[in-house]
Amino acid sequence: MALVEYADAAPEVRVVFDDIKATRGVADVNNFWKALAVHPPTLKRTWESLKQVMAPGALDPLTKEMLYLAASAAAGCAYCTASHTAAARAKGMTDAMHGELLAVLGMAAETNRLAEALRVPIDQGL
Amino acid sequence: MALVEYADAAPEVRVVFDDIKATRGVADVNNFWKALAVHPPTLKRTWESLKQVMAPGALDPLTKEMLYLAASAAAGCAYCTASHTAAARAKGMTDAMHGELLAVLGMAAETNRLAEALRVPIDQGL
Amino acid sequence: MALVEYADAAPEVRVVFDDIKATRGVADVNNFWKALAVHPPTLKRTWESLKQVMAPGALDPLTKEMLYLAASAAAGCAYCTASHTAAARAKGMTDAMHGELLAVLGMAAETNRLAEALRVPIDQGL
Amino acid sequence: MALVEYADAAPEVRVVFDDIKATRGVADVNNFWKALAVHPPTLKRTWESLKQVMAPGALDPLTKEMLYLAASAAAGCAYCTASHTAAARAKGMTDAMHGELLAVLGMAAETNRLAEALRVPIDQGL
Amino acid sequence: MALVEYADAAPEVRVVFDDIKATRGVADVNNFWKALAVHPPTLKRTWESLKQVMAPGALDPLTKEMLYLAASAAAGCAYCTASHTAAARAKGMTDAMHGELLAVLGMAAETNRLAEALRVPIDQGL
Amino acid sequence: MALVEYADAAPEVRVVFDDIKATRGVADVNNFWKALAVHPPTLKRTWESLKQVMAPGALDPLTKEMLYLAASAAAGCAYCTASHTAAARAKGMTDAMHGELLAVLGMAAETNRLAEALRVPIDQGL
Repeated sequence: MALVEYADAAPEVRVVFDDIKATRGVADVNNFWKALAVHPPTLKRTWESLKQVMAPGALDPLTKEMLYLAASAAAGCAYCTASHTAAARAKGMTDAMHGELLAVLGMAAETNRLAEALRVPIDQGL
Repeated sequence: MALVEYADAAPEVRVVFDDIKATRGVADVNNFWKALAVHPPTLKRTWESLKQVMAPGALDPLTKEMLYLAASAAAGCAYCTASHTAAARAKGMTDAMHGELLAVLGMAAETNRLAEALRVPIDQGL
Repeated sequence: MALVEYADAAPEVRVVFDDIKATRGVADVNNFWKALAVHPPTLKRTWESLKQVMAPGALDPLTKEMLYLAASAAAGCAYCTASHTAAARAKGMTDAMHGELLAVLGMAAETNRLAEALRVPIDQGL
Repeated sequence: MALVEYADAAPEVRVVFDDIKATRGVADVNNFWKALAVHPPTLKRTWESLKQVMAPGALDPLTKEMLYLAASAAAGCAYCTASHTAAARAKGMTDAMHGELLAVLGMAAETNRLAEALRVPIDQGL
Repeated sequence: MALVEYADAAPEVRVVFDDIKATRGVADVNNFWKALAVHPPTLKRTWESLKQVMAPGALDPLTKEMLYLAASAAAGCAYCTASHTAAARAKGMTDAMHGELLAVLGMAAETNRLAEALRVPIDQGL
Repeated sequence: MALVEYADAAPEVRVVFDDIKATRGVADVNNFWKALAVHPPTLKRTWESLKQVMAPGALDPLTKEMLYLAASAAAGCAYCTASHTAAARAKGMTDAMHGELLAVLGMAAETNRLAEALRVPIDQGL
C-alpha cells in the first residue's frame, strides 16, 4: 500500500495536508491521510467532512472522540481503534474512562447479539 | 419468538424482573428481558453484568448510554438501536446531540471502511 | 421481492426444488430457495453445495446445524437465524441446549469485541 | 497495547489469574486476560461469566468450544479465531471436524448474504 | 422514527430536497433523506458528498450503482439493499446481471470468511 | 496456519491446483488455496464454484472483480481486499477507477450506517 509523503505530494494534496496540520497542530499527518492521498478528491472531501463533524457543538470533543472510538471498535477496524484510542487519550480520556468504555463496548456486543439471535420485537412506542 | 410475561414467569425470573423494575423505576421490563427469560441463567448473568457496567463511574450515565447506542448502531442491531436511542433520550440526549452522534457514526463508518480498504498501517508509536 | 412458486417455476428450477423436497422429506421448499430461483445457476450451485456440506461426516447433523445457527446469528442474519433455529430444533436441539448456545454466542460477541478493541496480540505458538 | 504480567499485577488481578490457571490447569494465562487486566472489574466479570458459560451442561465442552469458534470466525476476530481453534483442538477437534466446521462456516456466510441481499421473508410459522 | 415531509421542512432542508429532486428528476425524495432531515447539517453534507461520488467519472453510473449495492448488501443493510437494487435496475441492471451480482456477493462472503477463519497470510508482493 | 505446497500435496489437491494454474495462467496458486487444502472437499467445491461464478457472462470479468473487491472490503477481510485489489488491477482497474471505487465504498458505509441508525422504513413499492 502506497503512502504519499508531503515531499512527493501534488499541490492539491499538500493543501489538505497543510490544513490538517494547522487544524490539529501536528507536525505530520497520520498514515490514513497519506494513504487516502492516492485519490485527491476523496482525500479533500473526507477531511472537510471530518473537520465539520468533529468540531465542537452540542457534544464536546472528548465525547465525540469516544463515540468515534466506540463505533470503530464495534466495526472491528484495527487501524481506527488504534488511532482513535490515541486521539481520545490526547483529549483527556483517563485509564478509568477507557476501562468503562471497553466495558460498555463488550456489554453492547453481547446484548446486540442476544437481541438478534432471539429476534426480539421492538418495544411498543419506540 | 416467545416473550415471558411476569404473570407466567418462574420465581427465578421474577426475581430478576423485580430488580430491573426497581433499579430503573419502570412498571414493566423491556421485551429484551422477556425474550432472554427463556434461559434464566443467561437472564440473571446478563442483567447483573449490565447493571454493574452501566452504573455511574468515571463516565456519566448519559455518556455511557450514547456509547452503547453508538456501538449498537455500528453493529447494525435494530432492536438495540431503538431501545438505546430511547434510553439516551430519557437520560438527556437532545435532538442536537442525537444529530451530532449520527454524524460521528456515519463518518466513522466511512473512514473505518476506507482505512480497511486501503490497508493503512498503524502509525508508529500507537 | 419475488418468490418463485413451484407451479410457476422453469424446469431447471423444478429439478432443484424436487431434490430439496426429496432430500429433506418436506412438502414445499423454504422461501430462501423460492427467492434464489430468480437465478437458476445460483440456486442449483448453492443447493448442491449445501447438500454436500450438511451431509453427516465427522460432525453429526445436529452439531452442524447448531454451528450454522451460531455463524448466522453472529452475522446478524434474521432470516437465517429463524430458519436455522427451527432446523436445529427439528434435529433435536432442546430448550436447554438452545439456551446454552445463546449464552456462548453472547459471550463470544463480548470477548470478540474486547479482544479487537484491545488489539490483543495472538499468543505465541498459535 | 499493554499486557499485564503476573509479576506486575495488582492483587485483585492476581486472584483472577490464579483462578484461570487453576480452572484450566495452565501455567500462564493467555494474552487476552493480560490485556483485559488494564480494567480489573471487567477482567473479573468477564472471566466469571466465561467460566459459568463454558461449564459442561446440556452441551458438552467440545461442542461449546466449536460454537465459540464459529461465532468468533463469523465475527472476523483474528485473535479469537486463533485462540478458540487451539482450544477446540485441545478438547478433541480433529482435522476432519475442523474441515467440516470451516465448510459450514463458509456455506453459512454465503447463504446469510444471499438471504439478506434478496430480503427473503421469514417462512410462515417461524 | 420521524420522516420530514417537504411541506413541514425548514428552508435549509427544502433547498437540499429541491436539489435531490432536480438532480434525479424525481417528484419526491426517498425516505432516507426525509429521515436524515432531522439533522440538517448531516443531510446537506451527505447529499453533497453522494452527488459528487456518484457523478460519472472513470466508472460509469451503472457500475457505481452496482458497487454501491454490493457494499450495502455485504454490510447487511436492508433499506440500502432495497433502494440500491431499485436504483441499479433503473440504470440498466438486467435480471441476468442481478443474478450474477448475487452470485459474486455470495461467493465473496464464503471466501471472505474462509480466508479469515484460516488466517491466510497475504501473498508476497501484495 | 499450515499452507500446503504443491510438492507436499495429495493427488486430489494437486488436481485442483493444476486446474487453478491452467485456468488463470499462473505459475503457482495463491495462499488462499494452499490454506484451504487442509480440507480437500472444501478446496475442490470452493474452486469449482468460484470458477463458475467468475466466468464471463452478463457482467464482464473486470466488473465482477470490482464487485468482489467491494464486497470483500465491506466485509473487512484484509486478505481478500489485498488479493482482489491485485486481481482487479490485473484485469484493467486503473488508479482513477480504484479511487472512485473507494469513494463509493466509503459513501456506502456512511449511508448504510445512517439508514440503520435512523431505522429508515423501506420506500413504498420497493
